[in-house]
Amino acid sequence: MDESKEKSPQTSTESTVPRAVVSRLSLYLRELQQLVHEGNATTNSTQLGTLLGFTDAQVRKDLANFGQFGYPGIGYRCEELIAAIKKILGTDRSWPVAMVGLGNLGRALLRYRGFQEQGFQIAAAFDVDVEKIGSTVEGIEVFHLDQLAEVVTVKGIRLAIVAVPGAAAQTVADSLVAAGVEGVLNFAPVTLALPDHVSRVGVDLAIELEQLSFAVVNRPENP
Amino acid sequence: MDESKEKSPQTSTESTVPRAVVSRLSLYLRELQQLVHEGNATTNSTQLGTLLGFTDAQVRKDLANFGQFGYPGIGYRCEELIAAIKKILGTDRSWPVAMVGLGNLGRALLRYRGFQEQGFQIAAAFDVDVEKIGSTVEGIEVFHLDQLAEVVTVKGIRLAIVAVPGAAAQTVADSLVAAGVEGVLNFAPVTLALPDHVSRVGVDLAIELEQLSFAVVNRPENP
Repeated sequence: MDESKEKSPQTSTESTVPRAVVSRLSLYLRELQQLVHEGNATTNSTQLGTLLGFTDAQVRKDLANFGQFGYPGIGYRCEELIAAIKKILGTDRSWPVAMVGLGNLGRALLRYRGFQEQGFQIAAAFDVDVEKIGSTVEGIEVFHLDQLAEVVTVKGIRLAIVAVPGAAAQTVADSLVAAGVEGVLNFAPVTLALPDHVSRVGVDLAIELEQLSFAVVNRPENP
Repeated sequence: MDESKEKSPQTSTESTVPRAVVSRLSLYLRELQQLVHEGNATTNSTQLGTLLGFTDAQVRKDLANFGQFGYPGIGYRCEELIAAIKKILGTDRSWPVAMVGLGNLGRALLRYRGFQEQGFQIAAAFDVDVEKIGSTVEGIEVFHLDQLAEVVTVKGIRLAIVAVPGAAAQTVADSLVAAGVEGVLNFAPVTLALPDHVSRVGVDLAIELEQLSFAVVNRPENP
């Protein structure tokens, strides 16, 4: 047994990075993609920080969790840092994703371009409404929830988006786990019970509005 | 000038609470509402922590930022803690909100029940598509973007949701600022430039999927 390998910096770093840092990686990635789009080959922590409202020290500290990316006198090479961040996030590959639930939110999410831009392809949609089964929505084939395990296997799906009503969400989650899905993005307004080997991210859109009302209420009256 | 007032714990605490703590307040609020729904009058940091996957110490530390809420031998009184958190978040009142952009995402957001449940009422919708102006979508009247300042004033709107294409988002944001809106929740895939007195929260739905792919990619192979 190779103990040095087991305790490699890579492994220990990855497992202890706070979730907030991971979500900031996504923000850096977006700004870098925009900078390249505007024709920039290089950037630096001051520019990235200014674009996002962070200090340059924060930018350097966040990226230092994952390696050494800057060049003296140059800063960051945009394309190189984009590739590095995508590798860290796991989006250097394409992820086939299952969309479960084709109500209003599910249908809107099928049309959301932001997923595909970042490497996530909705590979199949699932519902229990017989009128929807067998149809195609936004180019995505709709299957019955009973076909979940089969379709997940055939299409190599590892991630799923849950956009069903709260009352149905746990049953759907159990089916996803049984089908071998490894990560669940949950839009339903409930906390899902999932086994430890399945990763979970919850989305509650009202949380963002609450952060906004908090910010407005707690702003100094006379800035 | 009253220096003790200027340096009151209330003020200094509010201005230094990290955003991550504020978003956890929303999570505590959801679980407390669910506990009340299930007939529970009291709870404690262990139960709240277990429901959310936090330690009980984390729960106590988060809440201690805002005051003393527990009772020895009882724990937290659910209804009382719900009222306290709503007051902190500013959702002890109703917020009229403007929805700008009635494409697929905007329409889905109009139907999203989670906003209203937490005290946010969509009071008016705005678009530039003449076929939509004057119509009613999900019970919400649709106005032309040119009427923004007028409608915002009449309806007392302070918060706005931006669900327009990225290319239009900054122009919309400028109009919102000019109309006196104090907080913007942005679903467009761009970073908005806003003056300091306007609060901003961005939503990028792919970030959650990237957190999920990160978690799946970085999970120990053999847990």
